[in-house]
Amino acid sequence: MALNLDQVGSKTEPIPFTYDQDKLILYALGIGAGVDELDFVYEKNLKVFPTFAVIPIVPAIIKLMGRAGINLPTVLHGEQRIALHRTIPTSGTIHTTGTWSSVYDKGDKGAVLNMDFATTGPDGQPLFENTVVLMDRSAGNFDGDRGPKTERFDPPEGKSPDFSVQEATSPDQAALYRLNGDKNPLHIDPDFAKMGGLDRPILHGLCTFGFAGRAILEKVCGGDPARFKSFAVRFMGPVYPGETLITEGWKSEGGAYIIRTRTGDGRVVLGNAVAEIG
Amino acid sequence: MALNLDQVGSKTEPIPFTYDQDKLILYALGIGAGVDELDFVYEKNLKVFPTFAVIPIVPAIIKLMGRAGINLPTVLHGEQRIALHRTIPTSGTIHTTGTWSSVYDKGDKGAVLNMDFATTGPDGQPLFENTVVLMDRSAGNFDGDRGPKTERFDPPEGKSPDFSVQEATSPDQAALYRLNGDKNPLHIDPDFAKMGGLDRPILHGLCTFGFAGRAILEKVCGGDPARFKSFAVRFMGPVYPGETLITEGWKSEGGAYIIRTRTGDGRVVLGNAVAEIG
Repeated sequence: MALNLDQVGSKTEPIPFTYDQDKLILYALGIGAGVDELDFVYEKNLKVFPTFAVIPIVPAIIKLMGRAGINLPTVLHGEQRIALHRTIPTSGTIHTTGTWSSVYDKGDKGAVLNMDFATTGPDGQPLFENTVVLMDRSAGNFDGDRGPKTERFDPPEGKSPDFSVQEATSPDQAALYRLNGDKNPLHIDPDFAKMGGLDRPILHGLCTFGFAGRAILEKVCGGDPARFKSFAVRFMGPVYPGETLITEGWKSEGGAYIIRTRTGDGRVVLGNAVAEIG
Repeated sequence: MALNLDQVGSKTEPIPFTYDQDKLILYALGIGAGVDELDFVYEKNLKVFPTFAVIPIVPAIIKLMGRAGINLPTVLHGEQRIALHRTIPTSGTIHTTGTWSSVYDKGDKGAVLNMDFATTGPDGQPLFENTVVLMDRSAGNFDGDRGPKTERFDPPEGKSPDFSVQEATSPDQAALYRLNGDKNPLHIDPDFAKMGGLDRPILHGLCTFGFAGRAILEKVCGGDPARFKSFAVRFMGPVYPGETLITEGWKSEGGAYIIRTRTGDGRVVLGNAVAEIG
């Protein structure tokens, strides 16, 4: 289906997002945290996972997806990047401005849409940024630019990771995660998933992103969200709720880590990924 | 600690509770439902668990507990009864009036507080009733009436149950369930649990109640909430998050079932229980 290409460059007004401690705890549980990480699931001394930055922008994404004319059953989440200016407060109203920055034509593979989001805190000052890359598999071949090659970030060949975290997702992980706001039926509706050419509903890419972020926070940041500066990933393949995720990291230059997440059966599902640690 | 006995008979104003599909899905996940019970965790064709009736009354309970001067670390949930006039709508604003009906003096065991709640639907007509029995272990010996003997409902001796459902709770079950509104730290805070004389945080009795209600709904009501008329239970002992629950039912007179829930190691945690099925 054709995109509304005249909307490229379109920018939203600042969209408010109000949250409280319950929303943060719901997010934490949705990305697999539990009572072993009590500070993230209990309002006494509550800490905020840095990857929560992907949640307040959901209304802006939905708005831009509508303007772009994306075909929901054939859209996949390609890439995500977050960059934090400071730690996220434990409640408040924050504002996000979203821009559909560019679109690239990948032919039969589909169309790639790049969107950028800037979020300001309750004080009106910059809080975090997001970049979202979506792939609409039904929207390629519009005689557009194929776009630049993406920079590659691969684990060093033959070198053991500096950390590794293995954790099972729950069969109900997506049912819980979607309460954070991304209600795409692809993640819960078997019939809808089949319409999109998938065997069954898949986990949100951003849920896998959250599991990987938790692993980084624990193993590299000593559990301190203030040290988590940025995280950029490519989603490489579907995760089915209930599968095990293994996140590994390799220390790179300047405190950065190359990150990779595989499923229990060895498929890379999150790669080309870098986390910057302060 | 002494109760405010001059408040016995106290009645609240009708207290509003507004909910949407997300709150129903959060409740369903909190009592262990998942994608195997898709109609309860997905907004398309959403069904409402009858035991959700315990949630909208939480603000009224908290108000009455405040008036009664209950000592939170020593209070336990003794009994709960729900009776449904009709199925619960999938969203809306409903109103609950709560009454602290009576208090009994169980001596060194504590004080027993009986509270009754009547809830009307968005149309202002009766929707469901709750009876809540709380035990404040620090508030006995006030020279009060010991109260009547409770009617006993025990499984028939030597007879196999007509149904049995075994299911594990999650170690994070209470952390999730408390997002429904009962934030008593007893269910998440290790230090607070110790203040109350418990080894560690315990599952909400009403979470166990929800697990038992799901078993009844599946095995006796064919999954149809309209057939679930009432459910009355006594909480007999603590459940620790992560423990397995085994709910059994014995067919009794007039379509009623005697219900009992045990932990995996055989302790009865919910008993003296009857469900009425239509």
